[in-house]
Amino acid sequence: MIVVMKPGASQREIEHIVERIEQLGLRSHIIVGTERTVVAALGEKRDGAKQALETGEGVEKVVPILAPFKMASTEVKKERTVVRALGLEVGGGRIGVVAGPCSVESRTQILDVAHAVKEAGATALRGGAFKPRTSPYSFQGLKEVGLQLLAEARDQTGLAIVTEVMAPEHVKLVAEYTDVLQVGARNMQNYPLLEAVGEAGLPVLLKRGPSATMEEFLLAAEYILKTGNHQVMLCERGIRTFEDHTRFTLPLATVPYLHQTTHLPVVIDPSHGTGKASLVSTMARAAVAAGADGLIVEVHPDPEKAVSDGYQSLTPAAFRQMMAECRRVAVAVGREM
Amino acid sequence: MIVVMKPGASQREIEHIVERIEQLGLRSHIIVGTERTVVAALGEKRDGAKQALETGEGVEKVVPILAPFKMASTEVKKERTVVRALGLEVGGGRIGVVAGPCSVESRTQILDVAHAVKEAGATALRGGAFKPRTSPYSFQGLKEVGLQLLAEARDQTGLAIVTEVMAPEHVKLVAEYTDVLQVGARNMQNYPLLEAVGEAGLPVLLKRGPSATMEEFLLAAEYILKTGNHQVMLCERGIRTFEDHTRFTLPLATVPYLHQTTHLPVVIDPSHGTGKASLVSTMARAAVAAGADGLIVEVHPDPEKAVSDGYQSLTPAAFRQMMAECRRVAVAVGREM
Amino acid sequence: MIVVMKPGASQREIEHIVERIEQLGLRSHIIVGTERTVVAALGEKRDGAKQALETGEGVEKVVPILAPFKMASTEVKKERTVVRALGLEVGGGRIGVVAGPCSVESRTQILDVAHAVKEAGATALRGGAFKPRTSPYSFQGLKEVGLQLLAEARDQTGLAIVTEVMAPEHVKLVAEYTDVLQVGARNMQNYPLLEAVGEAGLPVLLKRGPSATMEEFLLAAEYILKTGNHQVMLCERGIRTFEDHTRFTLPLATVPYLHQTTHLPVVIDPSHGTGKASLVSTMARAAVAAGADGLIVEVHPDPEKAVSDGYQSLTPAAFRQMMAECRRVAVAVGREM
Amino acid sequence: MIVVMKPGASQREIEHIVERIEQLGLRSHIIVGTERTVVAALGEKRDGAKQALETGEGVEKVVPILAPFKMASTEVKKERTVVRALGLEVGGGRIGVVAGPCSVESRTQILDVAHAVKEAGATALRGGAFKPRTSPYSFQGLKEVGLQLLAEARDQTGLAIVTEVMAPEHVKLVAEYTDVLQVGARNMQNYPLLEAVGEAGLPVLLKRGPSATMEEFLLAAEYILKTGNHQVMLCERGIRTFEDHTRFTLPLATVPYLHQTTHLPVVIDPSHGTGKASLVSTMARAAVAAGADGLIVEVHPDPEKAVSDGYQSLTPAAFRQMMAECRRVAVAVGREM
Repeated sequence: MIVVMKPGASQREIEHIVERIEQLGLRSHIIVGTERTVVAALGEKRDGAKQALETGEGVEKVVPILAPFKMASTEVKKERTVVRALGLEVGGGRIGVVAGPCSVESRTQILDVAHAVKEAGATALRGGAFKPRTSPYSFQGLKEVGLQLLAEARDQTGLAIVTEVMAPEHVKLVAEYTDVLQVGARNMQNYPLLEAVGEAGLPVLLKRGPSATMEEFLLAAEYILKTGNHQVMLCERGIRTFEDHTRFTLPLATVPYLHQTTHLPVVIDPSHGTGKASLVSTMARAAVAAGADGLIVEVHPDPEKAVSDGYQSLTPAAFRQMMAECRRVAVAVGREM
Repeated sequence: MIVVMKPGASQREIEHIVERIEQLGLRSHIIVGTERTVVAALGEKRDGAKQALETGEGVEKVVPILAPFKMASTEVKKERTVVRALGLEVGGGRIGVVAGPCSVESRTQILDVAHAVKEAGATALRGGAFKPRTSPYSFQGLKEVGLQLLAEARDQTGLAIVTEVMAPEHVKLVAEYTDVLQVGARNMQNYPLLEAVGEAGLPVLLKRGPSATMEEFLLAAEYILKTGNHQVMLCERGIRTFEDHTRFTLPLATVPYLHQTTHLPVVIDPSHGTGKASLVSTMARAAVAAGADGLIVEVHPDPEKAVSDGYQSLTPAAFRQMMAECRRVAVAVGREM
Repeated sequence: MIVVMKPGASQREIEHIVERIEQLGLRSHIIVGTERTVVAALGEKRDGAKQALETGEGVEKVVPILAPFKMASTEVKKERTVVRALGLEVGGGRIGVVAGPCSVESRTQILDVAHAVKEAGATALRGGAFKPRTSPYSFQGLKEVGLQLLAEARDQTGLAIVTEVMAPEHVKLVAEYTDVLQVGARNMQNYPLLEAVGEAGLPVLLKRGPSATMEEFLLAAEYILKTGNHQVMLCERGIRTFEDHTRFTLPLATVPYLHQTTHLPVVIDPSHGTGKASLVSTMARAAVAAGADGLIVEVHPDPEKAVSDGYQSLTPAAFRQMMAECRRVAVAVGREM
Repeated sequence: MIVVMKPGASQREIEHIVERIEQLGLRSHIIVGTERTVVAALGEKRDGAKQALETGEGVEKVVPILAPFKMASTEVKKERTVVRALGLEVGGGRIGVVAGPCSVESRTQILDVAHAVKEAGATALRGGAFKPRTSPYSFQGLKEVGLQLLAEARDQTGLAIVTEVMAPEHVKLVAEYTDVLQVGARNMQNYPLLEAVGEAGLPVLLKRGPSATMEEFLLAAEYILKTGNHQVMLCERGIRTFEDHTRFTLPLATVPYLHQTTHLPVVIDPSHGTGKASLVSTMARAAVAAGADGLIVEVHPDPEKAVSDGYQSLTPAAFRQMMAECRRVAVAVGREM
């Protein structure tokens, strides 16, 4: 860490910081500049020391040198993580595609979609059984019945199941049916849930919160990794900005940035990332070109009748078309799909 | 709702929308403009109808007329809600002040702060026992021991206790010790938690998520209100923007806006809202001038040694000073404190 | 426009709005819903009527039906606009590539880059002679000398020149040397400049302001179009958000969104859009996959010695590599480059 | 500056940075930490050195120590700047109040407002003659006629005139009539305009751009200060965020932050900062409590008929009421108004 003192900080204040640094078990090193003094703290750990120094008298700011995450970092693990669940592979040469409806609505609906997306080349089926909804008056999911229908869809198609879990006390139940546990964007910093999901031992799809920085995102992943579960996929699904022509702003630079920073694979969600069916396929193509390791896409047999997210769902025909387009781009960037 | 058709939408598309509107149990009313047709849907409910219509062919957008929340709305309940817990009153003529450390760290620490803030005029004591921390390597709170210390502080001072609960399965335990259950910003859309907290029957302090719109904030409150628990305080603690000189951006217009929109009282958190101790008192004064019904402020006996949030904590002396300043502003706007 | 009245708006207030609508030369149409009354105003023009009605007593909000821009809209002109300047073509089947340094620094520098990017397949040369710099202490550009060097580079390579103009009084001078006038992000709403640039009659590259909505962006273009100059390229160069790991957030959904909304071609700037050389090529590829009609990329012979923007500049070798990668993606999406 | 090397940066890379630092005329100082090496560059100037170092091989990031602005900084000038124009004083003990319509519309309108705001206690009159409008189809101002009417209003009331200038070539004309030159938010980084306005020698009201950081805002001021004109007021008028219930988000922490960072006085614009007449008075009060040195408020005799910004304009009666409320708050915080 580098502690930058205010211009005119007193000798006493500088000495106090040196003392504090040593109390924290670090070594200090004073550098006297032309206008200011800075004190380097050597031996930095990834804990609260920054905050502790920041409050000292005469301190202007404290600049950490180390990233606060460890296990997620490429500094600690250089080989890329490949997440696998049945036929789904994310992080290897082949781009994984998770597709399906926002909510599981009925047996016919989920089975129809499952067969359709399987045929179009998806390797996993998404579908919500426990639904976090902004309004308490909206459909909240079929719960266990939904999970059973997803399992039936897997039995018929061989697709891996990806479904969200909303609370630690549901993890056990959901884990009985699914192949991948999804942590939704609203729960990215729900730490008891992250720990429970990590301990379940299944692969996890962790969605970025709409206002989470990369650091916060990777620290959320770190909560899971710390349980010993390394099968974590990071999912970019759009951030909240001032833009109002899309539901969220989808920042694809997340993909190359995370590829430089972490060994965990990156999945893009162009459905939530745009909130408009008419923009989904194009952004899926762009995601593939940006190097995404996976895609997660909402597909519904009849979007107009969907109980949720119809406005951003593709029809099975549009999804097939999207897959064909994405495959060509995948080849162009040296991947398969 | 108003369904705005695209320019050049076909007669068939318009008829289809009319049909869909009627299937949803609403009445339709077509208005042919000079450049476009719009179809009004009368009898709107607060459910998913908007989304259902939005996906129709030839539809450009759907404009809802009603706010999606009910019980939180001044349209439904005109008298302002006053939340009470021991000596804390929020929403009446007197401004409630919740003060205390970010985390409960030790018996001495919490008792010292409790007495200090009580003396300075606070009506409730804050202190985290279960701490949601961005990093898994940071201090996670004293858990039940922390709750016991808070209870002891209440016994000694008579201050109401406000403490956070992070998971539905902790609600029962936390509720045994506290007077107000706090739902943190990271959990604003943790719906199982909102429901569990609502059912506990205690007053709730609900913090706004850093990227939540007013509509999402009020719908989160609606989850609690729907359990029959009406003792809900809305807490503005800053939003995430591009600004980097403060930890969050504190939008005080939240106060008058919510006063026009909901009957629930509004509490301002200038500590998280700025993230800098040197800005807290000024923003507390501004919050009072903006009509805040309450303040929640971080106070620590020795901010430099705080295990968390020291950089935004006031010393007891600074807090006393803040109270004196705020009291003068309160009088100027016709309130007491 | 749809005027939504507040719940409980009085008959008098509704009548007043009807009267106001008619004074504005529009026809009114009252719709009485179950909870509210709305008044449709038919014959809407793209002027200030919305604001005029919004201030009426008892009015909750006014919802415009028409987009406020005309000439930029696909509703008014269906054929896509192709912008041409020497060998640069943007908006047709071939993707135009503008490359070069942030600032023109010296004769050697600009001629070297010009030849290098020409060889790699660029069709135009960028380079700043008048530089808008955040700090008054930064290099402000070589001014007319820089323009002369750009013209010399064109003479040697045949590349079209794209350079920024910062003030109406410079337009005449800059137009003497350049093939395309660039309006920078900071000047997107500098209306006297937009008009002056439009009247110069040269093709214009209009950069999106970092906090401009699509509507504001298209209205800025409208200022140029209104002068009779239709050779306008819209350039997305990233928006300002809370993200701090990139300089700006590059929202590629801008490309398909604008393709649906306007006939003007869209150029992506992955250099400013990321602010990091290591992310530029990947985002260029993604932009091509998203359907961008052009790219504008910073290239410098020795980024480390660049007087500005070195951290986001590619070396000539990296640019060649980027071009090769982008070409493959272009083919995959049915374009040439 | 502190140059943080990547983990595993080679000896050669570190030596190269040391060389670069010395070439830039700075002294270098290497600190070898447990996980990384950092190189301090001593003697930092406020120029482009940061960028130059940032592009070096093996460099992770460069942390500047000095703020990039000088003349605006409290480090350079400790006494607070007081801006004066006729009876307007901003930055002293008395809070200056600039009030008036968005646009000058007619002789009657501007004279009526001028007398009304004067009577209510305003010390300056605002009114736009050259209007930057988002849409080219909106009213663009009365231009010189508007200026003449403002001058007449000054003659009748003694109020100082504050009016916007949009282009360097208008500065001379506008300066003939006005007492304070306003630079609008859209032009905050229009550097030729900043220089022209600075050179005109009149006091300047500089509005913050809706996505400008504090650093960019102060560097814009620095452009004016560098011309030798020190009569600069900084005006916070709201920033662009995801919030949609107000037109902009008004961050009042700007006031105490700037008071710690610069000697220039701070003016708050609650009209643009909220975009809703019903929120203006409350936010004006809060601004006074936050320590604002001035207010600028839109007042119109008949907001419903205003050609621009009616929805955020106060009536003269509401303004009188606002003044009374603000005065009480001013007294409470030890100011006059």
